[in-house]
Parts: sequence; C-alpha cells; structure tokens
Amino acid sequence: MANLDVFSDNIKSIQPYKVQSSSGLIKLDAMEMPYRLPEEMREALGTILSMGNLHRYPNSKSSSLIAKIKSTFQLPEQLDIMMGNGSDELIQMILMATAKSGAKVMSPVPSFVMYKQTAEILGMTFVGVDLESDLSLDEAKFLSAIEEHQPAVIFLAYPNNPTGLLLDKGFVEKVLEKSSGLVVLDEAYTAYASDNTVDLLERFDNAVLIRTLSKIGLAGIRLGYLVANPVICEQLEKVRMPYNINRLTQATARFMLDQMSYFNDCVRKVLAEKEQLFNWLSEQPGMTVLPSETNFLLLKVADADRVFQALRDEHKILVKNLHNTHPVLENTLRITIGTEMENRKLRQALSQIVQV
Amino acid sequence: MANLDVFSDNIKSIQPYKVQSSSGLIKLDAMEMPYRLPEEMREALGTILSMGNLHRYPNSKSSSLIAKIKSTFQLPEQLDIMMGNGSDELIQMILMATAKSGAKVMSPVPSFVMYKQTAEILGMTFVGVDLESDLSLDEAKFLSAIEEHQPAVIFLAYPNNPTGLLLDKGFVEKVLEKSSGLVVLDEAYTAYASDNTVDLLERFDNAVLIRTLSKIGLAGIRLGYLVANPVICEQLEKVRMPYNINRLTQATARFMLDQMSYFNDCVRKVLAEKEQLFNWLSEQPGMTVLPSETNFLLLKVADADRVFQALRDEHKILVKNLHNTHPVLENTLRITIGTEMENRKLRQALSQIVQV
Repeated sequence: MANLDVFSDNIKSIQPYKVQSSSGLIKLDAMEMPYRLPEEMREALGTILSMGNLHRYPNSKSSSLIAKIKSTFQLPEQLDIMMGNGSDELIQMILMATAKSGAKVMSPVPSFVMYKQTAEILGMTFVGVDLESDLSLDEAKFLSAIEEHQPAVIFLAYPNNPTGLLLDKGFVEKVLEKSSGLVVLDEAYTAYASDNTVDLLERFDNAVLIRTLSKIGLAGIRLGYLVANPVICEQLEKVRMPYNINRLTQATARFMLDQMSYFNDCVRKVLAEKEQLFNWLSEQPGMTVLPSETNFLLLKVADADRVFQALRDEHKILVKNLHNTHPVLENTLRITIGTEMENRKLRQALSQIVQV
Repeated sequence: MANLDVFSDNIKSIQPYKVQSSSGLIKLDAMEMPYRLPEEMREALGTILSMGNLHRYPNSKSSSLIAKIKSTFQLPEQLDIMMGNGSDELIQMILMATAKSGAKVMSPVPSFVMYKQTAEILGMTFVGVDLESDLSLDEAKFLSAIEEHQPAVIFLAYPNNPTGLLLDKGFVEKVLEKSSGLVVLDEAYTAYASDNTVDLLERFDNAVLIRTLSKIGLAGIRLGYLVANPVICEQLEKVRMPYNINRLTQATARFMLDQMSYFNDCVRKVLAEKEQLFNWLSEQPGMTVLPSETNFLLLKVADADRVFQALRDEHKILVKNLHNTHPVLENTLRITIGTEMENRKLRQALSQIVQV
C-alpha cells in the first residue's frame, strides 16, 4: 500500500469539508441567491463567451476585471486588488503567505469554517474565541486573546456566518489597532448588511478585505476579490498561481458587473422576503428566530435534528443543521432566504412539523 | 507601514512568477495551441453556457466531468481522479498535503518552475538535480540523490519542459521503486509525446499522474486533472477547496471532451508543423535545434539575448529566452510551434537576424 507517512499529521487527522447532497430538494442551505439569471442576460453572456480565445492563457493579473471591480464598488484608489477562485482561495493565499512555525490564526467561533480548516491544513495553530450564549462576542476577551496569542492573522467575518450578526465597528477598529498581524475583514455578506469596513481599509494598513460574488447571484463562477494596501498585496501576489482566474470567469465577471442594477434588485427582493419570513417566524410558538444582516436566518427549535430531517425527508426542503457544531448553536438551523414560493413552502412545512 | 514580519521568510525572499507582456506580438512563448476554436464550436459552447445555473454553487467534486475524463482518456477504473485549476493547483494541493518540517521536494533541473516555486512558498526544501550539458539526466546521480534526500515528493515531467525530452521509462520505474514518497508524473505535454506512464500508475501506488487541457487547445479554461490510487486521493481531497472548479469550467470541459477528434487533429497539425520547422532549423548555419516530444523546440544560437530581442522588437515575435535561467540552457530559446503562417514569419525573421 501507498505509504501514508508522506502526508503531514495535520492532513491525516483532519476531515474533508463535506457538502450535503441536495438532489431534488429546495436548496435553502448554502446562501445562494434563489433567482436564476434572466434569459436575456444568460443569452448575452453566452454570446460573449462564444467569442473568447480559449486556446490562449488568461490575463495573468485579471487587469481589466480588477479595474472594473474598483470602479463598480468604489474602492479607494490607493489600495490594490487581487482575484481568487472564491473567498476560499483568498483565505488560502493569505495563510500560505503567513504560515510559519508557531504562527497562529484567530477568529471568533463559530464563524466561517474555512478559516480553521485552511489554517490546520497549513500546519498553523488555530485559536478560536468562543461566542457567548447570545451569539455576541465578548470584546474584552477577544482583545486579551490577541495580546496573549499575538496571531499572525485574525479573521473577522463582517457580518458573521453562521450567526448573521455584525460586530461593532468601534471594536473592529480596536482589533486593528491592537493587532501586529493581518486583520482579514470577510465581507461575504456585505450586500445584505447595514455597514461595511472600507473606510477602515484606508486608515489601517494591516487590514485586508475579502469579498465574493457568490452571495449576490454568482455562486457558480466562484469569484472573490481581496483589497489591501500595496505592500501587503506585493507579498500575497507571490503565492497567487500566475493564471488562477480563467478566461471564462474573467469575461463573465466583467459582463456581470455591468448588470449591477439587476443584482441590487435581487438583493432588495431577498431582503423583503427575509423581513416577511422573520416576522412570520417570530410569531410561531416553539421556535426563536434571530435578527440577521445576511441572506439567512438562524432558527432555534426544540429539536433541530427532528425538524431538519422532517424538512428534508417529508417536505424536500434542505436547510443547514448547526446542532452539534458548537454549544452556542444547540438546536439551531440556518435557513437561506429562498424565492417567495420556496419561503411559503418552508412556512407551511414548519407549521406542520411543529404541530406534530 | 504594514508590518512585514507577519509574512514568512521564504515568501519575503522569493520572486513572483513573471508573465512577459505579449501585447501585439505573435505568441510563440507559452506552449499554447495556435488555433482558435472553430466558430460553430464556440457558438455551441456559448449556447451551453447560457443555460447554466450560475446562481448555484458548482458540483463540489466535478463528478460528471471526472466520469467523462476517465472514459475519454481510458484511465484505469481502480484509480481516482481529482480536478484542479490547471496543473498549478494540483501541484499546490500535492505539496500542501505533504509540507512538514524537513520535507524535501526533488526534481531534475531545469524543469517546470512551479515545482520549486510552490515548494519554497510552502517552506519545503527543494532539491534540484542538474541535467547534464546535453540536457540528459544522469540516472545514477538522480537515484543516489533519492537515497540521500528521501524526498517526500519527486516531480518528473514526462516529457520535460523546457528540454522537450522524454525520460527512459525503465528509469521512471526505478524512481518509483526507490522512492518512499510520492512520485508525480507530470504529463502536461503527453498529447505530443510517443509514450505515457498510465501503465505505471496501475503498478505503483506511490505514482501520481497530473495532466492539463492547456496544451491541446484550452489554456484559457485552466483545467488540470490528477490520477492516483484512492488512498492517495483521500488525503489530497482534504486540501482541495470544496468548490474549486466553477460551473463555467466544468460545463466547458464536458462539452470539449466530446470534441476530441478536433483536438487530436490540431495536435497532428502542430506535430507536422514542428517537423517542418525542425528540419528547416537543422539546416541553418549558426544555430542548433534539439529534438522534442512536445509542442515546442529548443534552439541554441550564438547570442540568445540578441536574437530574442530582435525577434520581439523588429519582427513582433515573442519566444521564451532561457539564457541565464540555468547553465545548460546557455544561449537557448524555447519556441512554441505556431500556425503555418506564424512559423513562416519566424523562419523569415531568423534568416534575417542571423545574416546580420
């Protein structure tokens, strides 16, 4: 048999990231936008993609795409931008560049699982600071953990997944002040949030912003971008694979960034659906819904395993069961906002399940 | 200023991979297929891509694409397949999974630069075994280096870039026998070579095959695949980003694998062009051309810097200047085979330059 000694101990001990099967189910599990792109938009995209030069390597730096991102999202001129295959690759680049003996990675937990997963793959020590039972972060505890561990990289999801909450911005500022390492502000859900951290990027040169197009309607193209000062980006560029973003992705993203009014409309529709669902859930007996600055809601029920299974097996609705992932998420489900019809089916299903 | 202490020393000391500007030039520098895809094929692709569900995450494992790759390239049933964004990502996954304190990575040098680059990014020690002045590998020297260094990973490009040569297969077998680590057989150029190593994969469970669609006409989609026994793939899967291959790429590759007769025709045309160019170059005074099992030729001239610059600046032809990259490549240019017209322009340009 192949000699497994060649793999590092951290690799052998970790579990791969698992994607649950969603075949034939209403997908309310993955924070995707529920609306398929309109036919005319898809056809226009098809025409553009049919004109590409697929026999040639892509533009190495995604230059024209980066220029378009900078203008579309009005990012400060003096900051540099890098592209990744989703936030996942950006997280990987940041940690590859900072992985060294004894280097620590810190974030509140629960938060996006790839911070810990990627840190451990790279042999870094992950320090998680547990959220309180009301899902808030004890700021003093976090600041003193920075002092104790001196992390090379801190991840702050703004807003946080899976809690849906936005940290206090004054606190984020304190983290940036106190940290001698990089502070990565993960704004995957920024389209649904009431604030962002771009202004902090201009003031703190250890701040690194990462974002994705996945949550506004383009999860299928796996594109993320990173914004930081040029001194940081110069080092991160060294670990970026020279042609990491392919021609199809670059051309699609350039085209889609011209359709922002469509995507903004979709975001508004999801926010309206979320409000309606939140209000309905708030009135139901036997469950508690939490406020959220994202496109998902956390729902606490009496028996999350039972509700999860009944939704999936009897009602063909897939949500994310967070029970047993962290003590503060006991009996908690994460529900991505769907279309009007999907949300109605969810409400009907929950009514039936809870009555039983 | 941002504190650069956070970056590892290996990152701070390495140079980023540089892509030379090719704007307005005939590109004979990057081993791309010179033929643009036919219009009907591009239109059919555009139609397929216009029907996708870009608002949804891609299939995490690229399952249907993997099934198609297995059947198209007749890969042994008992081996597993993984997809990467080009061979680059596959190399990165292999080294991330095996990076540990003291782990060494070995390959002949010169060879594909990303082996060393990625090893150093990950803090591994790269051991290069220099080729002889005739570009051959001293097999005894390589085997004794394996014994001395006990590398975690050995890369053998089959055939090799930038030399264009194929190792003796009996020697590859000896490397697989002698190595307790992984032996990665990089067959990026296999479409142009007289042999491959698939049979060795069935016999040696430390063998890992990597290939790419880049050299047969699809450099723009950045897709590579890895073949190895399931025990190896189980570990490598842990470092693969869960949605690494996006929907556009998966759909495009599935469509293109149904067009293999077109790609095989292109390969045959390039091979015929290569033979013609090789014969012409062989007859020219003041230069030596080397045989090649790839889609490029190595050309030794009296003054490579001068010829490179004259080709680029006076004749708008971009090749790769390998001078000063390794002693055995002194005054050597690497020329990718172009279209009939591009190769004719190259011959005319070389005739003029050498006469001066």
